[in-house]
Amino acid sequence: MLESEQVRHDARSGKLTEPTAGLAYGFVQANLVILPAADAMDFMVFCQRNPRPCPLLGVSTPGDTGIARLGQDLNIATDLPRYRVWTNGELTDECTDVSHLWRNDLVSFALGCSFSFEQALLEQDLELRHITRGCNVPMYRTNVPTQPAGKFHGPLVVSMRPLTAADAIRAIQITSRFPDVHGAPVHLGDPALIGIEDLSKPDYGDPVDVKEGEMPVFWACGVTPQSVLMASKPAFCITHSPGYMLVTDLKNAELAVL
Amino acid sequence: MLESEQVRHDARSGKLTEPTAGLAYGFVQANLVILPAADAMDFMVFCQRNPRPCPLLGVSTPGDTGIARLGQDLNIATDLPRYRVWTNGELTDECTDVSHLWRNDLVSFALGCSFSFEQALLEQDLELRHITRGCNVPMYRTNVPTQPAGKFHGPLVVSMRPLTAADAIRAIQITSRFPDVHGAPVHLGDPALIGIEDLSKPDYGDPVDVKEGEMPVFWACGVTPQSVLMASKPAFCITHSPGYMLVTDLKNAELAVL
Repeated sequence: MLESEQVRHDARSGKLTEPTAGLAYGFVQANLVILPAADAMDFMVFCQRNPRPCPLLGVSTPGDTGIARLGQDLNIATDLPRYRVWTNGELTDECTDVSHLWRNDLVSFALGCSFSFEQALLEQDLELRHITRGCNVPMYRTNVPTQPAGKFHGPLVVSMRPLTAADAIRAIQITSRFPDVHGAPVHLGDPALIGIEDLSKPDYGDPVDVKEGEMPVFWACGVTPQSVLMASKPAFCITHSPGYMLVTDLKNAELAVL
Repeated sequence: MLESEQVRHDARSGKLTEPTAGLAYGFVQANLVILPAADAMDFMVFCQRNPRPCPLLGVSTPGDTGIARLGQDLNIATDLPRYRVWTNGELTDECTDVSHLWRNDLVSFALGCSFSFEQALLEQDLELRHITRGCNVPMYRTNVPTQPAGKFHGPLVVSMRPLTAADAIRAIQITSRFPDVHGAPVHLGDPALIGIEDLSKPDYGDPVDVKEGEMPVFWACGVTPQSVLMASKPAFCITHSPGYMLVTDLKNAELAVL
């Protein structure tokens, strides 16, 4: 059995209740958004218009709990260790299985996640400060608007990794190969230029230090869709809980476009 | 006749006495270094060890005035509009033809030039400030040492182009495709980190303004070998005069590695 499949089985059986970071090394982990069909087309168009924060790895047929491209033995409703349930834009429940909430009109969206490009950066010996520090990557709401679609709108959220100039250049080269998992950075240097006032106060995750001779480098972040969902208040929505991702049978390496 | 061949013929006949920037659009222009065979191997190793400032496009057989890869009807001794002659590291002559100085032991090196990657940047609508301003690109001696080889040593010289963060990221992607013409930037952001104290005082070329919201982006520069030749003082050497390049039959587009 693939390691990725094992992780899904363990989540399904209730054996795995921890975040998925570090599990099934080399396999693609994905952000998850589940919406009723009535909102699904708007959200899909939103993703199409905003591929940097919302790179679509897979979309289900309405009602289906599988997405063939992402794994054969895959049940979207049970295979993540933790889910969030949203009602009118408010977080109303957090649970380890959403089978009891399943409906025939639900459409699942799997969106690329920075874990994939971070593996590529680490394999080339770039230091990722939040990993060195053992904390979450710092994330910030910017003043950069996304391209709206139907009811979905809101600002771009970015993650930040401090790098030397030489490492930033290398990181741009490496992550440019992975457009399906956020791709190249969207900004680097002065945070104020994208509306970030204080790097030490991230909106999500934990602050990390930017050392002398380093610059902050910003990537579009998969938290953007969750932020957009909160702002756009669809009547019903399910997502993964941050850090508790959908582990797929895709390999990170196969997402490279070059 | 190819436009590039026409430019060489015009230089050969004395009809062309101007710099070559803007001539034979799409064709690769090259920096030229001519050394006696006794120094040639050291210089070739220097280029091999420092591919960013000294990307080798072609090397002649000793005594030959042609380099087959760069053009069929090509005479290194006559086909540039202007040459510089160096004796013991000092500039001792500037002339439009070096046939009278030709020797059977001279080896010619053609090195990639930023004109090629600038074409790629302009075609993607990036603004290059020195071109907008109609002046030379500003160049700076850094405190970054090159890897020495034999008598050849000296600091890296860089050219600087101010860009917004988004354009800098795009420029890194574009120029990474062209390692034969300096490739990706070597630095961006704080100039002091590579020993540049004052951007308004370039060591070569003209200063350009870095606007609010822009950052300086630095590429390894083809002036590095001339700076190294001055520091390393070979007994005899011929180079192009800055701006008066060898126009080859190679196309910029064919240098793209991806």
